[in-house]
Amino acid sequence: MSRFWSPSIQSLVPYTPGEQPKVDGLIKLNTNENPYPPAPGVQQVLAGFDVDRLRLYPDPDSGELKRALADTHGLETHQVFVGNGSDEVLALTFMALLRQPKAILVPETTYSFYDVYIDLYDIEAQHLPLTADFRIDLEQYRQPNGGIIFANPNAPTGISVSLDEIRTLLDHNTDSVVVVDEAYVDFGADSAIALIDQYPNLLVTQTFSKSRSLAGLRIGCAFGHPELIEALERVKNSFNSYPLDMLAQAAAVASLQDETYFRAHLDKVMATRQWTTEALQTLGFDVLPSHTNFVFASHPKLSGAELMSYLRERKILVRHFTKPGIDNHLRITIGTDAEMQALIDCLQQHPSL
Amino acid sequence: MSRFWSPSIQSLVPYTPGEQPKVDGLIKLNTNENPYPPAPGVQQVLAGFDVDRLRLYPDPDSGELKRALADTHGLETHQVFVGNGSDEVLALTFMALLRQPKAILVPETTYSFYDVYIDLYDIEAQHLPLTADFRIDLEQYRQPNGGIIFANPNAPTGISVSLDEIRTLLDHNTDSVVVVDEAYVDFGADSAIALIDQYPNLLVTQTFSKSRSLAGLRIGCAFGHPELIEALERVKNSFNSYPLDMLAQAAAVASLQDETYFRAHLDKVMATRQWTTEALQTLGFDVLPSHTNFVFASHPKLSGAELMSYLRERKILVRHFTKPGIDNHLRITIGTDAEMQALIDCLQQHPSL
Repeated sequence: MSRFWSPSIQSLVPYTPGEQPKVDGLIKLNTNENPYPPAPGVQQVLAGFDVDRLRLYPDPDSGELKRALADTHGLETHQVFVGNGSDEVLALTFMALLRQPKAILVPETTYSFYDVYIDLYDIEAQHLPLTADFRIDLEQYRQPNGGIIFANPNAPTGISVSLDEIRTLLDHNTDSVVVVDEAYVDFGADSAIALIDQYPNLLVTQTFSKSRSLAGLRIGCAFGHPELIEALERVKNSFNSYPLDMLAQAAAVASLQDETYFRAHLDKVMATRQWTTEALQTLGFDVLPSHTNFVFASHPKLSGAELMSYLRERKILVRHFTKPGIDNHLRITIGTDAEMQALIDCLQQHPSL
Repeated sequence: MSRFWSPSIQSLVPYTPGEQPKVDGLIKLNTNENPYPPAPGVQQVLAGFDVDRLRLYPDPDSGELKRALADTHGLETHQVFVGNGSDEVLALTFMALLRQPKAILVPETTYSFYDVYIDLYDIEAQHLPLTADFRIDLEQYRQPNGGIIFANPNAPTGISVSLDEIRTLLDHNTDSVVVVDEAYVDFGADSAIALIDQYPNLLVTQTFSKSRSLAGLRIGCAFGHPELIEALERVKNSFNSYPLDMLAQAAAVASLQDETYFRAHLDKVMATRQWTTEALQTLGFDVLPSHTNFVFASHPKLSGAELMSYLRERKILVRHFTKPGIDNHLRITIGTDAEMQALIDCLQQHPSL
């Protein structure tokens, strides 16, 4: 607190990202990073980059990257927006589309950054609870609203809703924007990008940080009707008119160009998720059905906090949330087979398991 | 305009950056890019970067880059903030420090993005005119205010104020924040960073886009009292909790480590500016005294618009502003000696010069 701060920021509670400890030898299953490197083309981009070009500003419109994203998803470039990570894309989305006179609808348990934006922009919001089995029930969202946002698959539960459920919601909700945050969609859920041409009020956000192993380069994107994209561009160009840096743009294009590598490594993560889920269940864990690169699990005999501490003492980091209703769960990122085996071995040695 | 947009963005007028044409063979003197490549260490950073690390999130606190900036300027790391270009740093500064109940003071002619932020955040602002010889008169800023921001050197005039003038302003203005935007300071002006330890209300912003030839990587920074830096961090972490990407951070550190290269290339630009100024004066131009990598010049016989078109037809791009009072001037970036010689040769061939 300081007398020099803008009054409106005095009460802000910023988002807390997962810990990034600088300790060697940790098994890091706490921030949903991909265990595999980015596509080999990214290495070639860096090795071959003409460093002299860095003295110039990047293309303000990110034309090449938008073209690659449009081609990947069968869209036109004016249906594509890019930003510095999907957090920035979401921040601009809240400013451009979700600051409305009516309350927006948002799941009570979801990506916790949404509530930070709601606070930052002083947005009125109605929080809708998950079902008893931790699902988002989109039927609840059929009520007057200034906008709707949810993550699909949802975080930290990992559970997805079907494209049919989203389509039905859109058929009932035609007067406000519906934002589907698909940070994890590539790990087994269906993308609502398929619905963009039919629904002018649908915006889909994605990230290169999870499925494309490029968290270090901060690349996010959004897809939707050109009018929604224009809203994002207007706000972006009133905030920071320059785009992603040149290297991030070039690396993102290289990643999009290697579909074979992309699919092969998604399959690996999903196979590891499958046996990890079964191994956790064998140990008595309740594991929610995940379409992400993490599992959300609880154990009837041990609290989430206890389990987290137990693992942390043995150099395995997982994420634990203190929010009531999910405070007994652990969010465990899917790492390599070896990392997940180490996790299972460690849990097996727990005296109560 | 769309019924899905947030009401507050319907009237936004985004910033327009200088043109980045995709045409070969142009002499591009319109966006104040540095004609020399970044420090050779940047090339080594890219060539030697372990691409596997890109799957991980960057250090949320940008520790290594803040340490390098603090060491460069004789500060502590908690006096340093970094962002995606100084435009983002300025956007966060307006949100965190300049959204005040009282009107802020800002020069009438300065970096035109300030008015976009003022509009975006609905800030009350009082615009103070430059003197007849295009200087910022800081004595005018000794009046009640919610904050003060100006560029030093100012853009697009290129003229700087002295450290003594800034110190006197700070002695008279102790109850609100004073932001000095030093995008161009390395080209011959004195940095107010020297005053930070004495004035808790002074924030200085800088960029790697001009003097460090890294416009393509979008690196900006701010320096000030830890309480001002904390305000920026709070807003940043409520907007986009992740920092600059890993490659941008590593390249920035490499640039800071090569002071010899940095100084040598600043000297080159300043020497080119010197003879270019004299050559323009010989042609009858009025050239304002520049402490930047551009000159702001007008000619008694030809309008700014005419001159810009004449040069553009001959594949030389310069920047022309339509704002009354400066609409007869051209802002000409200092390129290489060869580029500036081509400019002078081209002007000499003009029938009226």
